[in-house]
Amino acid sequence: MKKYIPLFVFCFLIPLLLLSQEIKYFDYSAYVDPFSGTKNMGHTYPGATVPFGMVQLSPETDTVHFDLNGKYNEDVYRYCSGYQYEDNTIVGFTHTHFSGTGHSDLGDFLIMPTTGEIKLNPGNKFTPHSGYRSVFSHANESASPGYYSVLLDDYDIKAELTATERTGFHKYTFPESEASHIILDLCYGIYNYDGKNVWTFVRVENDTLITGFKMTSGWARTRFIYFAMVLSKPIKDYGFKREDGSVYRGFWRRFNQEKNFPEAAGREIKMFINYSTKQNEEIKIKFGISGVSSENALMNLREEIPGWDFDTVKDIAREKWNKELSKVEAELPGEKMKMFYTSLYHSYLSPTIYNDVNGDYRGLDMNIHHSKDFTNYSTFSLWDTYRALHPLFTVIQQKRVSDMVNSMLVHYEQSVHKMLPVWSHQANENWCMIGYHAVSVIADAINKKLTGFDYNKAFDAAIKTSNADFYDGIGLYKKYGYVPEDLNSNSASKTLEYSYDDWAIYSAAKTLGMKNEENDYYKRSLSYKNIFDASTGFIRAKDSKGEWKSPFAPLSTLNQGYIEGNAWNYSFYVPHDAGGYIKLLGGENAMISKLDSLFTMYVDDKYFKESEDVTRDGVIGNYVHGNEPSHHIAYLYAYAGAPWKTQERINLIMNTMYKNGPDGLCGNDDCGQMSAWYIFSALGFYPVCPGTNEYVIGAPQVKKAVIYLENGKKFNVVTDNYSENNIYIKEVSLNGIKLERLFITHEEIMQGGELRFVMSSVPDKERGKNKEYRPYSMSGY
Amino acid sequence: MKKYIPLFVFCFLIPLLLLSQEIKYFDYSAYVDPFSGTKNMGHTYPGATVPFGMVQLSPETDTVHFDLNGKYNEDVYRYCSGYQYEDNTIVGFTHTHFSGTGHSDLGDFLIMPTTGEIKLNPGNKFTPHSGYRSVFSHANESASPGYYSVLLDDYDIKAELTATERTGFHKYTFPESEASHIILDLCYGIYNYDGKNVWTFVRVENDTLITGFKMTSGWARTRFIYFAMVLSKPIKDYGFKREDGSVYRGFWRRFNQEKNFPEAAGREIKMFINYSTKQNEEIKIKFGISGVSSENALMNLREEIPGWDFDTVKDIAREKWNKELSKVEAELPGEKMKMFYTSLYHSYLSPTIYNDVNGDYRGLDMNIHHSKDFTNYSTFSLWDTYRALHPLFTVIQQKRVSDMVNSMLVHYEQSVHKMLPVWSHQANENWCMIGYHAVSVIADAINKKLTGFDYNKAFDAAIKTSNADFYDGIGLYKKYGYVPEDLNSNSASKTLEYSYDDWAIYSAAKTLGMKNEENDYYKRSLSYKNIFDASTGFIRAKDSKGEWKSPFAPLSTLNQGYIEGNAWNYSFYVPHDAGGYIKLLGGENAMISKLDSLFTMYVDDKYFKESEDVTRDGVIGNYVHGNEPSHHIAYLYAYAGAPWKTQERINLIMNTMYKNGPDGLCGNDDCGQMSAWYIFSALGFYPVCPGTNEYVIGAPQVKKAVIYLENGKKFNVVTDNYSENNIYIKEVSLNGIKLERLFITHEEIMQGGELRFVMSSVPDKERGKNKEYRPYSMSGY
Repeated sequence: MKKYIPLFVFCFLIPLLLLSQEIKYFDYSAYVDPFSGTKNMGHTYPGATVPFGMVQLSPETDTVHFDLNGKYNEDVYRYCSGYQYEDNTIVGFTHTHFSGTGHSDLGDFLIMPTTGEIKLNPGNKFTPHSGYRSVFSHANESASPGYYSVLLDDYDIKAELTATERTGFHKYTFPESEASHIILDLCYGIYNYDGKNVWTFVRVENDTLITGFKMTSGWARTRFIYFAMVLSKPIKDYGFKREDGSVYRGFWRRFNQEKNFPEAAGREIKMFINYSTKQNEEIKIKFGISGVSSENALMNLREEIPGWDFDTVKDIAREKWNKELSKVEAELPGEKMKMFYTSLYHSYLSPTIYNDVNGDYRGLDMNIHHSKDFTNYSTFSLWDTYRALHPLFTVIQQKRVSDMVNSMLVHYEQSVHKMLPVWSHQANENWCMIGYHAVSVIADAINKKLTGFDYNKAFDAAIKTSNADFYDGIGLYKKYGYVPEDLNSNSASKTLEYSYDDWAIYSAAKTLGMKNEENDYYKRSLSYKNIFDASTGFIRAKDSKGEWKSPFAPLSTLNQGYIEGNAWNYSFYVPHDAGGYIKLLGGENAMISKLDSLFTMYVDDKYFKESEDVTRDGVIGNYVHGNEPSHHIAYLYAYAGAPWKTQERINLIMNTMYKNGPDGLCGNDDCGQMSAWYIFSALGFYPVCPGTNEYVIGAPQVKKAVIYLENGKKFNVVTDNYSENNIYIKEVSLNGIKLERLFITHEEIMQGGELRFVMSSVPDKERGKNKEYRPYSMSGY
Repeated sequence: MKKYIPLFVFCFLIPLLLLSQEIKYFDYSAYVDPFSGTKNMGHTYPGATVPFGMVQLSPETDTVHFDLNGKYNEDVYRYCSGYQYEDNTIVGFTHTHFSGTGHSDLGDFLIMPTTGEIKLNPGNKFTPHSGYRSVFSHANESASPGYYSVLLDDYDIKAELTATERTGFHKYTFPESEASHIILDLCYGIYNYDGKNVWTFVRVENDTLITGFKMTSGWARTRFIYFAMVLSKPIKDYGFKREDGSVYRGFWRRFNQEKNFPEAAGREIKMFINYSTKQNEEIKIKFGISGVSSENALMNLREEIPGWDFDTVKDIAREKWNKELSKVEAELPGEKMKMFYTSLYHSYLSPTIYNDVNGDYRGLDMNIHHSKDFTNYSTFSLWDTYRALHPLFTVIQQKRVSDMVNSMLVHYEQSVHKMLPVWSHQANENWCMIGYHAVSVIADAINKKLTGFDYNKAFDAAIKTSNADFYDGIGLYKKYGYVPEDLNSNSASKTLEYSYDDWAIYSAAKTLGMKNEENDYYKRSLSYKNIFDASTGFIRAKDSKGEWKSPFAPLSTLNQGYIEGNAWNYSFYVPHDAGGYIKLLGGENAMISKLDSLFTMYVDDKYFKESEDVTRDGVIGNYVHGNEPSHHIAYLYAYAGAPWKTQERINLIMNTMYKNGPDGLCGNDDCGQMSAWYIFSALGFYPVCPGTNEYVIGAPQVKKAVIYLENGKKFNVVTDNYSENNIYIKEVSLNGIKLERLFITHEEIMQGGELRFVMSSVPDKERGKNKEYRPYSMSGY
């Protein structure tokens, strides 16, 4: 491990690969495996992107269509990111992908290079040579941050991809052929269904420039995406095929509009370009995108990739990754190094930039807006990411936090609902999952004193959002003190999450000195108590008459009032008031015992099959790590005075729920939340209750780590006596002073310094007994 | 007739109706009948609009859908403008209409006020009370320039409409009702078919503002239109209905998004607003539109109608009409006064403004552009309007001519085809009809020395357009010297029109001193000779081997190589070289005799049924006035030295092909071409060959007319000895000097002065015998 060699040394040791800038950062990219999570349910993609980039240029390994009449389509679900590691054909390369989501969309503008007979149908993976798709082998495939390459066996074409923020860069090395082709298929899409393509529009502006747009109605209901495609080799012969049915266009079809005619439009357009190529001839494509216009897509492309040097763009992409990855210089044993940096890589894939180089972006009102003083972001999968991903950004991406909050605020302003985003998706609100967790991100940023956004505006938006009575039971929740299950389903989960969100508002109100709101939201944040069923010891759905939902099946996730979790997992969801919940349960021992049961009980497979994205891999006992509601649970032992059990469980989760390789993730990565959980936990602390300034101490997996803060300071984590067996904490010290507390604060990190763990094979069962050292709990202990 | 009373007198005589401006113009609007042409095939609309306005707010009397599998759908064709006078129900009021077109589109954003049970289906005209439509009676209907009113019998609601350039203003007077409604139906459209609505999007921004857009694929393939709708009465209760099928949207339908939920989107959205109204309560709606964004639609609305005073807006609209109508102060006998001003009104309905108040507009590249120094126009139905409408504008709307040429030039620049418009249609080229007649408009403007546009740029665009080889046989035409019928249909018509267009380019080249182009296009403009069949005496389609199209049926319009005309009518289409054509025919007598035959021969009905928009009403003998190719023919007698026959025919055409009333037009008004023909002819002269500076003298129908020129001068037409029987010209004088010439020049008009006709019941058969007095002919006589 050479990462402590002074940076200037690298400047001499490593050849100057980049023309435009010196190498400044250690090559942490070498530890990143973009294939991690591409098998089974990780839903990550292996393609080329830069940190938080708008373009994710990645291969598609199949075409599957949604059956809108079916309730649920497992096949489509497998292709949330377009790529499944077990497939052996590649359909083409598209420019937009979500990382790790549990529903999906995108897959815009498929490019496929082929030779021989022109095929405009992608074909079928069971009869691979039937369409334009190609067989490939993982032996001829490679991926690293900002770069992807594969040999397309059917055509003997080597495909290489890299990217900038808003532009994909393709390089195809062709064999000698009189019949080489580039296919641009605008019909392809992820989570496709008949009718998803609302409109497609293509223009051949000149012999190297193609522009156009696509409008889709999928997870995002009204989504526009524009492109500009520049080819290195002039186009002489090309054509279009319109796949959708007949339309009225007057009776004027007097001239051929399918062959070498420079414009096409329709619901489903495909384009092909014919070339003749020499052996090893390279055809390169720069492909800019924009949510605003094709003009802006071209501007993005020209600004970001002025020349044709693929390797330079690729090297710059890697350097961007190294810059961001270097914010945590960590040392972990063996293969865990790869796990750590792959997780950090995944944490930087979302949210995604959603404005053009000049600041233009499309708002939810479908009007074009301009982000003068901030970078606009989209892809806020907030139900997932408010837990650990956004808190991680408050430590190592503070500038982006303010940009993200500003993005949420313009979303709020431009939203006709006057709500902060639930799931912000390219100028659309897709309403995915529950809660209004943007308020958590905002409260966290306010309470941690992050700058660059208007506190009052943000607070006001949080208040308005929490009073959008039409939304998902908020009005009912305010009226009844809980969401009644008979009037709005998944009511127990909603009540719990609204309680936490309201606590977040309460905490910000306190910081800002808003007394009225502080009082109001204090009360609202205790709503969870209204659905605690003392007779069963669970948080349980209740109807509008005050009757408990029956029959009660605490292991089931179906029709019990929970979503993506059962009563066991969801009942612990009181991150802001663990002490209050412990009291409800009957004390610390009851809490510890219940937590132990969760992690150790046997649960029949059938219960996991009920849940839409959890496999047995993502489970320890009845603890479900593959879904987010449980992510804080292992840390709750600390709140009950048994931090050694937290240490044990965290160690177990890190060692069993995460691994390297395509099947490295035990569930959807969920836009980085699963990965951010690992980053925090491996560093030895975790934000159980975002909005507090506390990170609860778990058990580190790093031997050493230096966190480079944006204020110029460094926060070091050092783990003494590190070994596989020494999973318990013997002692913690902060800046050389012994730390009895079970948490560290955000301010302590920001001041820089050293957090030192001394590990042991023996648990310290006395640690944490003293309640004054325990983490924040609203009602105390 | 008081029109010679000095203008200042009116300022004192007429009460000041308008708050914002003084009345300056005589009320020629009183002579305009917006119902003219609304019966049968005139295809005009009776609703409210201002001169060249982007908004045409007008009633729809039925919903008909196109059968895409059928060849031709007569029902749809009848509703090109949404309104048929014979209907007795009104479906609602929409904001956009073409005037007099022969295919159609638009009919955007239908508003219908109703009471009682909410109906969201328009119902059927045969069972009128089945849907939201209402029975109405012409007795309770009225229309005048800028205003339309009707009583909706089913609901006892009085509907009144007025408009500004970009905003419609609705005023509905309700009865007392607990169940009053406003329907906003985004599904309705003219020339509708299943799938025409590509997308609709609506937001309730607050309790008086609704915004949204619609995207359609009809005659315009990729058309966006945005709106902002402001209501005078706050909305409390509303809902949406989505008429299209199911779509994927994740599985998140947890809350009611149909009732009082402020956003809806889908292929087919309808909205309703519920009110309770008092007796005679007025609900007013201001409805702004834009091709750019809903933000701009709102800006247009706010700029153009800041207040709520319906009558003021209505009065201003009328005043705008009076201003434009007053450019020709004409006196005609009796009912002809109405015919003249209704024709002038129709001449000012197209082209239509296509930019927002700030200059923004959508280009053919779908990007948003800005018209800094000109007003951008759309709705260029050039195959029709280059003949008389655009030449009319060169006399009385010179500023608009330069704006229109500039609009054509940006169309050219933004078009991926690098072609001037064929049929420019809201950021789309709909390719309707043949030729590249924009070059005629440009050459005419250059040759007449109109200013305000870049001659070189315009000339260059004309050259490029005429060399767009992919377009409709241009490449073939250049190669063969004619369009071969076997390779491209309607080839005779195309060859003729390309010849004329090429002459127009030749003439501009001459003006601009472009010697090479002058020579090239001189040759191209003689191409018509390549398809003159001396054996039959007709212009006739020829194949690529030089064989005449056979069997030859000179009366048929079907499959003979002509479009909207037969061999008889089309063969005279050599407006730039009548002399050359006369020589081909064998001399003047042959020409006169052939013209006589055309006007007098008997043609079986079946031939007119073949033609898509000609009825027996639009025909004299075999002369078809209802379609444009013949519009110059009656003037051709003058070229053969028999102007007295021109006088006779013109008089006949004016008296039989035009009349007042709903059935006043003998065919489609074609965006004002039919009407402009009448204006010119009634004034006594006509632009047979636009691009020359000549107007060929016919026979006036005005007793007097003053043409107010934009250079401040006046050109007077005076007709002495005027009577119904005195249809022949005895003498013409210009500024008191006897005019032997059979034409006047543009410069003569522009200098101001007096053109005096002395009429007689006896033809002057000697007039015009001298060839030097005859109008321009390229090859001479």
